[in-house]
Amino acid sequence: MDERGALALLDAELEAVGDDAAVIDGLVVTTDMLHDRTDFPEGTTRYTAGWRSVAASLSDVAAMGAEATAAVAAYAAPAFDRTELLAFVRGASDVCEAVDAEYVGGDLDEHQEFTVATTAIGRTGADGDGADPVPVPRSGARPGDRVCVTGTLGRSAAALELFERATDADADADAGDSSAAELRDRANDLFRFEPRVAAGRALAPHATAMMDSSDGLARSLHQLSEASDCGFAIDGGRVPIDDAVRDVADDEAAALELATTFGEDFELVATVPEDELAAVREAADVPVTEIGTVLEGEDGITLDGEPLADEGYTHG
Amino acid sequence: MDERGALALLDAELEAVGDDAAVIDGLVVTTDMLHDRTDFPEGTTRYTAGWRSVAASLSDVAAMGAEATAAVAAYAAPAFDRTELLAFVRGASDVCEAVDAEYVGGDLDEHQEFTVATTAIGRTGADGDGADPVPVPRSGARPGDRVCVTGTLGRSAAALELFERATDADADADAGDSSAAELRDRANDLFRFEPRVAAGRALAPHATAMMDSSDGLARSLHQLSEASDCGFAIDGGRVPIDDAVRDVADDEAAALELATTFGEDFELVATVPEDELAAVREAADVPVTEIGTVLEGEDGITLDGEPLADEGYTHG
Repeated sequence: MDERGALALLDAELEAVGDDAAVIDGLVVTTDMLHDRTDFPEGTTRYTAGWRSVAASLSDVAAMGAEATAAVAAYAAPAFDRTELLAFVRGASDVCEAVDAEYVGGDLDEHQEFTVATTAIGRTGADGDGADPVPVPRSGARPGDRVCVTGTLGRSAAALELFERATDADADADAGDSSAAELRDRANDLFRFEPRVAAGRALAPHATAMMDSSDGLARSLHQLSEASDCGFAIDGGRVPIDDAVRDVADDEAAALELATTFGEDFELVATVPEDELAAVREAADVPVTEIGTVLEGEDGITLDGEPLADEGYTHG
Repeated sequence: MDERGALALLDAELEAVGDDAAVIDGLVVTTDMLHDRTDFPEGTTRYTAGWRSVAASLSDVAAMGAEATAAVAAYAAPAFDRTELLAFVRGASDVCEAVDAEYVGGDLDEHQEFTVATTAIGRTGADGDGADPVPVPRSGARPGDRVCVTGTLGRSAAALELFERATDADADADAGDSSAAELRDRANDLFRFEPRVAAGRALAPHATAMMDSSDGLARSLHQLSEASDCGFAIDGGRVPIDDAVRDVADDEAAALELATTFGEDFELVATVPEDELAAVREAADVPVTEIGTVLEGEDGITLDGEPLADEGYTHG
């Protein structure tokens, strides 16, 4: 059984399991585990690891259209190095501060492999004035709605390429130390994404369906399609490809491929009625780009008229 | 830096870090990571692992005197076996049900070593009618208060011994399969403790200080002593030793030693004014045993008149 099969099994077992996060009593709860071998490439700083792992859970809160309240992390490593631990906590705290949440600590554990488990908690409008139609489900997309994404796609794909080049530069005696260090700095910058909590709040009153793009745009569209029983027509020319992707991709086609399938970007993918797009754009703190249209289910999912395969990142 | 040093460092860094759990906006949040090598002895079923790992976090909610709302778990293993995963989820769900909380799922991750990270969320009385003096801190014990523990101590110590005997029985050709299986069943039963959420709620209006005994009674007393600047005089004859400990210990002294220092029992240790003991006992759903008295700080911590060392379980 692979991870997707196991997740489907869990969904069937647990009533309260939501879309990107579980919802209970007006609270949104989501947890993630990340570890060295699959999630933190060589060169990832502990500050970046703290930021990114907590951000991954905060992104699930954002995808529900909820406010972020707090996050915790369990930090496991072969040994506890003071500098590394403090850097991790600073990264975790800083990303919480960036989305008006509080980092409230966690647990420590000795483990052979550096492993982080994070949990983020948010609040829906359910126990407030009830005005916001949150949490936003994955299942409400209607034919005619516009497909939008926040920010840009491909940052993590570009970061991984730069981490790899840094490792290659280390091995290459002629490249010099500064080259590898600069590549790693740039990769770490790209790896520290800002969870789209504010954008999620801006989208929540308008979006008919929403999720984050952690598995890649293509896979996210397939998941929305399944939940909403709809199709999508995506315009590749409108996909907001991050400039960093163009720096590492051979050509525009390769850049679009990375931006649509690589994933791990944690942008929001949402469907919005066309006449509400302007209101969303005005309320959001980041660009919200229209990239396509919701179709009937039988129309399938296309990118520039060609079928878009359900390919993307499978979380290890 | 060992784990205790690292935890002290984190406490100094993070303002919102509470005692057994962090408290924010009327919510109690706590997270724990457990893994195969240190926390799940050979013979621990996945059902027990699901129960116990979620219970460990729920115990921290109990130790704050809060209601338990929900729990999540990130489950990481080398492969996802359907039967094992479902057993884990049933264990996690069942322990949540036992304390009126909801198990709302979590994350899956491939990992070389079976690893579980759990987070539990509770609510204090802060956003209710404000009548309950919760969360109960570790710092309020006053000389003259009585020291109480819920339930019995030493179950986990006994369980570990039985798990080891089961492994030995497997190696011993004469012992037969049924012997090892029976030992493991008994050990698993002992390992699935009930988090003292209801008892914590009963203690909360009365307790001046409270924590759980996850590091052992001795270490818990030292932590309460440090937080409350007090001493303790404990009567060894009153310590509620679980019958299972007597089954595995050589004599009464060895049983008392295991019950006071082994830890991993997750009972509550609380200090209560003498004239409120009766009210606590009436309200609690489990026995609350008086085992000693709170002294001035300079009196130190004694067991039957002898200094009680700060020895116990250090979570791996």
